[in-house]
Amino acid sequence: MKSFFQITPLEQVFAYATRFERVDTETVPLAEALDRVTAGAVAAPEDLPEFDRSIVDGYAVRASSTFGATESNPGYLTVKGEVLMGRPPEFTVGAGETAYIPTGGMLPKGTDSVVMIEHTEKLDDHAVEIYKSVAPGQNVILTGEDFKKEDVLFTAGIRIRPQEAGLMAAFGIRFVPVYRKPRVGILSTGDEIVSVEETPAFGQLRDINSHTLSGLVAKSGGIPVAFGIVKDDFASLFHQCAEALKNTDAVLLSGGSSVGTRDLTVEVLSRLPDSRILVHGIPISPGKPTILAHVGGKMFWGLPGHVVSAMVVFAAVVRPFLETLAGLSQARPQFGIPARLTRDLASAQGRIDYVRVRLIQKEEGLWADPILGKSGLIHTMVSADGLIRVPMNSEGLEAGTPVDVFPV
Amino acid sequence: MKSFFQITPLEQVFAYATRFERVDTETVPLAEALDRVTAGAVAAPEDLPEFDRSIVDGYAVRASSTFGATESNPGYLTVKGEVLMGRPPEFTVGAGETAYIPTGGMLPKGTDSVVMIEHTEKLDDHAVEIYKSVAPGQNVILTGEDFKKEDVLFTAGIRIRPQEAGLMAAFGIRFVPVYRKPRVGILSTGDEIVSVEETPAFGQLRDINSHTLSGLVAKSGGIPVAFGIVKDDFASLFHQCAEALKNTDAVLLSGGSSVGTRDLTVEVLSRLPDSRILVHGIPISPGKPTILAHVGGKMFWGLPGHVVSAMVVFAAVVRPFLETLAGLSQARPQFGIPARLTRDLASAQGRIDYVRVRLIQKEEGLWADPILGKSGLIHTMVSADGLIRVPMNSEGLEAGTPVDVFPV
Repeated sequence: MKSFFQITPLEQVFAYATRFERVDTETVPLAEALDRVTAGAVAAPEDLPEFDRSIVDGYAVRASSTFGATESNPGYLTVKGEVLMGRPPEFTVGAGETAYIPTGGMLPKGTDSVVMIEHTEKLDDHAVEIYKSVAPGQNVILTGEDFKKEDVLFTAGIRIRPQEAGLMAAFGIRFVPVYRKPRVGILSTGDEIVSVEETPAFGQLRDINSHTLSGLVAKSGGIPVAFGIVKDDFASLFHQCAEALKNTDAVLLSGGSSVGTRDLTVEVLSRLPDSRILVHGIPISPGKPTILAHVGGKMFWGLPGHVVSAMVVFAAVVRPFLETLAGLSQARPQFGIPARLTRDLASAQGRIDYVRVRLIQKEEGLWADPILGKSGLIHTMVSADGLIRVPMNSEGLEAGTPVDVFPV
Repeated sequence: MKSFFQITPLEQVFAYATRFERVDTETVPLAEALDRVTAGAVAAPEDLPEFDRSIVDGYAVRASSTFGATESNPGYLTVKGEVLMGRPPEFTVGAGETAYIPTGGMLPKGTDSVVMIEHTEKLDDHAVEIYKSVAPGQNVILTGEDFKKEDVLFTAGIRIRPQEAGLMAAFGIRFVPVYRKPRVGILSTGDEIVSVEETPAFGQLRDINSHTLSGLVAKSGGIPVAFGIVKDDFASLFHQCAEALKNTDAVLLSGGSSVGTRDLTVEVLSRLPDSRILVHGIPISPGKPTILAHVGGKMFWGLPGHVVSAMVVFAAVVRPFLETLAGLSQARPQFGIPARLTRDLASAQGRIDYVRVRLIQKEEGLWADPILGKSGLIHTMVSADGLIRVPMNSEGLEAGTPVDVFPV
């Protein structure tokens, strides 16, 4: 079977994401939930807080007892007692009365607000002067003011941040239903590639792509699973691809930049059961010879062999697919860092160019300085702070043009 | 000893970072090096690549053999052989000669460039027509073009990204000297606080801060070490702080929003051996009652008890300190996401206000919508996409003002 190399517009590429099913779910302890993706909405099992609490040190009052109090005309209140931390007060506070309350203390019955200690003066154990009036609810968090029982804490498909973890702790939620982390198989092809453990013979190179792609998979929330280096022959490639697909949720095959290997990959894909090539060629540079296939329900990517191309394709296309697989329903949109281009940049129409840039902070603001160089050179990516996009229908960008820099 | 509460300007706070020593170093396998901080500069042990290699499929030539070749006036070359992947060619190519070479193949002796296969036509096994001329070095990565032997791959104090990991793989560097991850002890104080495992009695709350702070520490590259909840008395606090300091590189004590607990913290710090309070009060809101101390060479932070305040202080001040401790010498600067404010925002002069915002994408661009609410309410942080800063000497910002949003 000959390779059928036809560019698929990016919108159509991304539309294929819905063809792949999310990974299944599991339950993890709260302490391991950070950065995981929620598998279901969680509702508040109770009010938070469950009692009115003070957020300052001061005197708990009913607000009406303080109305009119000023520096020059202080109010005078009788002290009924002191609130102890973590315990319901055993007394009631009426009109003209008050009780000392520390930050976090529970409001005594009869009170609705707290006068900050800075605005009071203790006269003796039984009397205090108030120099400022308060409104009902002031300096207090009311029962259920943070969350009411049954409120939705969060929906399915969000990545758990430290604050979400804290919120679950607040409700005593010790086990969290999350999506499994997608297992992503990583394979490098090429008869000239040897593993990092080996000393390459003259004419050979060590495997760079497995290591960069593993890092990218890990940083996007997946579990990279190394399937090593495959020789450029049908039997080896078929066997290793089948093996990787069997044991993972998605496979990234990189290498095969030569037409021969690409043809081989297409042939392997066409012979794997229940396989369909969805995309063979995307309108980005570097990264055009990218393959996306649906194989027995699994996701298969054929990525370019040059390391920079493979990284660009991962950042531009693969990552959102893996995030969909991982259960994310509302990936927080990626925003670029605004900068201005240091120099003119030529580009061809009909494709999106991804250019590596260094960020330079000058007095007048931030500048994006293009790092030019072949996509086979890893140093261009090591020197880069990020990527900028030169749009599809542009013949290039002039020096000074505002651009968005996406960190790499 | 009474609390000495005096605001330290932020520049002075950050200047104290140099008082703390970096953690020591260790060596980790390459596969575990992602996101770790390099502990020394690494130089290239050899050229990369170690041979001239083709970056396209085509015909290896000496460029001069192609000069003048065009579509209408093709050049004619004799095919000397075919380059096999991963092996040095066993033949030499002279003027008027060529050899087929796949992507990644090693250039035969006598050649300096490659004509892409698209610009050739094979006549028979011994002859090929060339439709385009090439320059010396074209479509080739020359020996040492990516890195020359002895080139610095990267300096000490950078965080290893996927591309740096790939670069080490390229050189067969299987073990990497990195800084240890700082161990950061986390303690919550408060007689009203119970652990996530317990059911709070009426008037008690579960510990939120330990979980949010653990997440923040982990996300900034540290190892959070939980030291639980401490009662608000001198003996308990002294014992637990000493214990935490003994076993970690830095300690975050949160809670103690009441004046009584802050005084207690100051007293504990003053009694610990070799202890000095550097900062007691910072000009940010929320987060003013923040303590930084230097205790027996270790870093000690007293953070506000309200969860939002503690998170803001972590993001604004603690994180850069932990990154210094972690060995980072060139933290990639944090850039905000530019947006415009949806509404007027009042602020007091003399402090930096950190306001939680939601990002809203509209047709005319991105808007930052302030989430107002007490800093004791965790829902304001759960709803937030980021923080904006209202500067020290501003009385507020008007609707429409451009702001930078820092993700939380």
